[in-house]
Amino acid sequence: MIKILMVGCSGRMGKAISQTVDNFENLTIVAGIDRTSENGFQYPIFEDISSCTVKFDVILDFSRPDTLESLINFSKNKLTPIVLCTTGYTAEQLNKIKVMSETLPLFRSANMSIGINVVNSILKNISGLLFQNYDIEIIEKHHNQKVDSPSGTAILLADTIKDSIPEETKYVYGREGIAKREHKEIGIHAIRGGSIVGDHSVIFAGQGEIIELNHTALSREVFAVGALKACEFMNGKQAGMYSMDDVIKS
Amino acid sequence: MIKILMVGCSGRMGKAISQTVDNFENLTIVAGIDRTSENGFQYPIFEDISSCTVKFDVILDFSRPDTLESLINFSKNKLTPIVLCTTGYTAEQLNKIKVMSETLPLFRSANMSIGINVVNSILKNISGLLFQNYDIEIIEKHHNQKVDSPSGTAILLADTIKDSIPEETKYVYGREGIAKREHKEIGIHAIRGGSIVGDHSVIFAGQGEIIELNHTALSREVFAVGALKACEFMNGKQAGMYSMDDVIKS
Amino acid sequence: MIKILMVGCSGRMGKAISQTVDNFENLTIVAGIDRTSENGFQYPIFEDISSCTVKFDVILDFSRPDTLESLINFSKNKLTPIVLCTTGYTAEQLNKIKVMSETLPLFRSANMSIGINVVNSILKNISGLLFQNYDIEIIEKHHNQKVDSPSGTAILLADTIKDSIPEETKYVYGREGIAKREHKEIGIHAIRGGSIVGDHSVIFAGQGEIIELNHTALSREVFAVGALKACEFMNGKQAGMYSMDDVIKS
Amino acid sequence: MIKILMVGCSGRMGKAISQTVDNFENLTIVAGIDRTSENGFQYPIFEDISSCTVKFDVILDFSRPDTLESLINFSKNKLTPIVLCTTGYTAEQLNKIKVMSETLPLFRSANMSIGINVVNSILKNISGLLFQNYDIEIIEKHHNQKVDSPSGTAILLADTIKDSIPEETKYVYGREGIAKREHKEIGIHAIRGGSIVGDHSVIFAGQGEIIELNHTALSREVFAVGALKACEFMNGKQAGMYSMDDVIKS
Repeated sequence: MIKILMVGCSGRMGKAISQTVDNFENLTIVAGIDRTSENGFQYPIFEDISSCTVKFDVILDFSRPDTLESLINFSKNKLTPIVLCTTGYTAEQLNKIKVMSETLPLFRSANMSIGINVVNSILKNISGLLFQNYDIEIIEKHHNQKVDSPSGTAILLADTIKDSIPEETKYVYGREGIAKREHKEIGIHAIRGGSIVGDHSVIFAGQGEIIELNHTALSREVFAVGALKACEFMNGKQAGMYSMDDVIKS
Repeated sequence: MIKILMVGCSGRMGKAISQTVDNFENLTIVAGIDRTSENGFQYPIFEDISSCTVKFDVILDFSRPDTLESLINFSKNKLTPIVLCTTGYTAEQLNKIKVMSETLPLFRSANMSIGINVVNSILKNISGLLFQNYDIEIIEKHHNQKVDSPSGTAILLADTIKDSIPEETKYVYGREGIAKREHKEIGIHAIRGGSIVGDHSVIFAGQGEIIELNHTALSREVFAVGALKACEFMNGKQAGMYSMDDVIKS
Repeated sequence: MIKILMVGCSGRMGKAISQTVDNFENLTIVAGIDRTSENGFQYPIFEDISSCTVKFDVILDFSRPDTLESLINFSKNKLTPIVLCTTGYTAEQLNKIKVMSETLPLFRSANMSIGINVVNSILKNISGLLFQNYDIEIIEKHHNQKVDSPSGTAILLADTIKDSIPEETKYVYGREGIAKREHKEIGIHAIRGGSIVGDHSVIFAGQGEIIELNHTALSREVFAVGALKACEFMNGKQAGMYSMDDVIKS
Repeated sequence: MIKILMVGCSGRMGKAISQTVDNFENLTIVAGIDRTSENGFQYPIFEDISSCTVKFDVILDFSRPDTLESLINFSKNKLTPIVLCTTGYTAEQLNKIKVMSETLPLFRSANMSIGINVVNSILKNISGLLFQNYDIEIIEKHHNQKVDSPSGTAILLADTIKDSIPEETKYVYGREGIAKREHKEIGIHAIRGGSIVGDHSVIFAGQGEIIELNHTALSREVFAVGALKACEFMNGKQAGMYSMDDVIKS
């Protein structure tokens, strides 16, 4: 049984993970870290990792960027693997993660869903190949409370496509007026409505045929599953920088 | 057997109709009107409707706005029904069509596909009903040679939705940046790529559910079928202004 | 504020409704009926409607068929409207509901989602019209734990289509082997996988075009919203038999 | 300019290729082989490859299995590459093709669309990886005149998936009745209607997410384009067995 320390256990994702972990026979959350007065957790909560009295095998972090320092300091002694799912790190913090991965087993991914990472990995393989004869467009759909357009995941996919194509490409975020599409355009369309969890489609439209890759997230659970699979994967790993690609290929 | 006069027989749509008419047991094209030196038509061609020596029951027009005058003048005597599929009429010409429909049997529609007209008619019924609890977005897809965005048909559908909703709505043609969707927005997204013939989706996204209406045109044939059904419908009709809605409900 | 009595409050749907009601400013659940030892409800629980000491305006029932008798008996005195979302009634019980609706305000629907009822109502209007020239196929998708195929909702939609078409039609539940499609076939295809909540598509495929109606349920919340809208609608209604169609058109 | 000999030039695909070749600047059809009395070809027609008096670089065959012998015999002398798009070879003929590819440059693929071959190649990479946590279903859509269900391409894709998964899997061609999905099932659903050219979707449905790969053929042109790209690729190639995979990766 792999013992997980859940950092950020009272957040939305922390709670989703605490529910989802029951589906994994070989995983258990043994303690949580958070500044919370809430009750009802099935494991003891500590305010800080340094005050935690419970033993664990993997640190799962879904908290905030400023927790990074304490996690790394803790891991230094025992080389405990850390799964970093927190977003919004500064360039300096990202660099620190990279440097520390030479001596610590660190995992980080921009999107924790296995499916999106599979799609991203497919795009790496086929975009360069298809670009010459296919026009590429991305359509993403999210709920009406989302403030940023296009979604971070749509940008992640678009950047993967852009990096796989030797020629220059250009993002276009909608079309109105009289102008023929240029081949170098990559259209990125942000649909917003209702309570859509998250839908991403990449369309390769050629002469007489269309290839489409689609990913639909049905619930937040999917990010919880990805995070827990990353914990499973990181248990016992040696120092290094790991990502969802490694989990998928394992 | 209903005899059709095909005005604009050497154009792209004229040719498509000449092929498609063979699938209709009760329809035949008996003559064409066009200024062309092309051969290979299965019926006699005349330069002008006034010089046509063949008898016909219905005039099918897929030519240009400036043909209108001669068609109406011809129809005045025999009250021959005219199916007007030509686009780009001036406001003056549209008014003339309206006025003349008091004495002549005239048919006109902005889009000749039966399917689009069915979708449009559904939107008339449900948009006002659903607007309060659903966000509405339109996605249209066309080939990479199309110069106007969004498509005329997307605007037709959007206008139908707008007219069915008592509250104020506002078209939005793509999204980029930080801003939450306002409920009054109707997103219209123009995807361009490859050789896509024409795809229109209207999405009603609510709390926990999505209703989607989709129309896909597979080939130009679909507009030919609509035009020929309109001829079938108009044969023997009395004076009046008719549209695809009447054909569908017949 | 409309006061609701939640019958079957400890079931899956009862719980979903108890959460969703907070989104309705004019609705509140004032008491629950159930045989349960669970805690954590935000309203008092009674074992039987006859022992309930709290006043309410509408009865919302998501329990079991055998509760019907007690609900109707209670309603007889005060003519309290009842929203019946329970499924599995016997023919005898269905008849009793019908008879009692002459003196009581009763609501019943086979599927509580507003969206599915909108789709069903569209199908009533267009199926007869389109059948002659379009082939009709239904595709439904559900999670891998669902035991019945096709889904009850797919059958509901198929029956609506069948009843709208004067000609004979025939359900087909998959295809394998050598045989051309007969026009009278209505294909019904049950896709099963993962945790898909519920997806229904009706396809009208014609010459050169396809019309598709799609409904996606994103969560159980959608059925809760439909049930609560039915309560809103039924408050203060006179005797009669009401359904989701009436709610939609209101 | 690469000179092509079009074997089977009067068939449906032969004609489609003769039109499509104009879009390729570096390709031209210099002669055709067929038993036909039709006129209107833009190149000379011969009844048999042995009687052809025109020089060419690549043989493109879209005729019948029994032409194979003569093509191989011809190629033996000059090592002219042959692109075999004909289907329905016997096991014996397939073996001969394999043996002859040791000394001749031979190309063969079950489906000439580039897009389907890209999808097939993706499936090879991801199916084994995903199977443990995802249920796999295939949906294909074709016109109402197609006699075989499921389509040959759907079977091609299903076989690729089956071969990529170490565990036992089982094809299921539709569902009706009471039975939970077994994980080893691969659902294959054949939708038939109207004039749909060809649509193939592979769905990987997991906990909380769905990955979908979709291919849509818009016209027969897409198979013509694939065949002509294969000619481009095979020009000047050495002996060996080549397939669409090699074209895609080139």
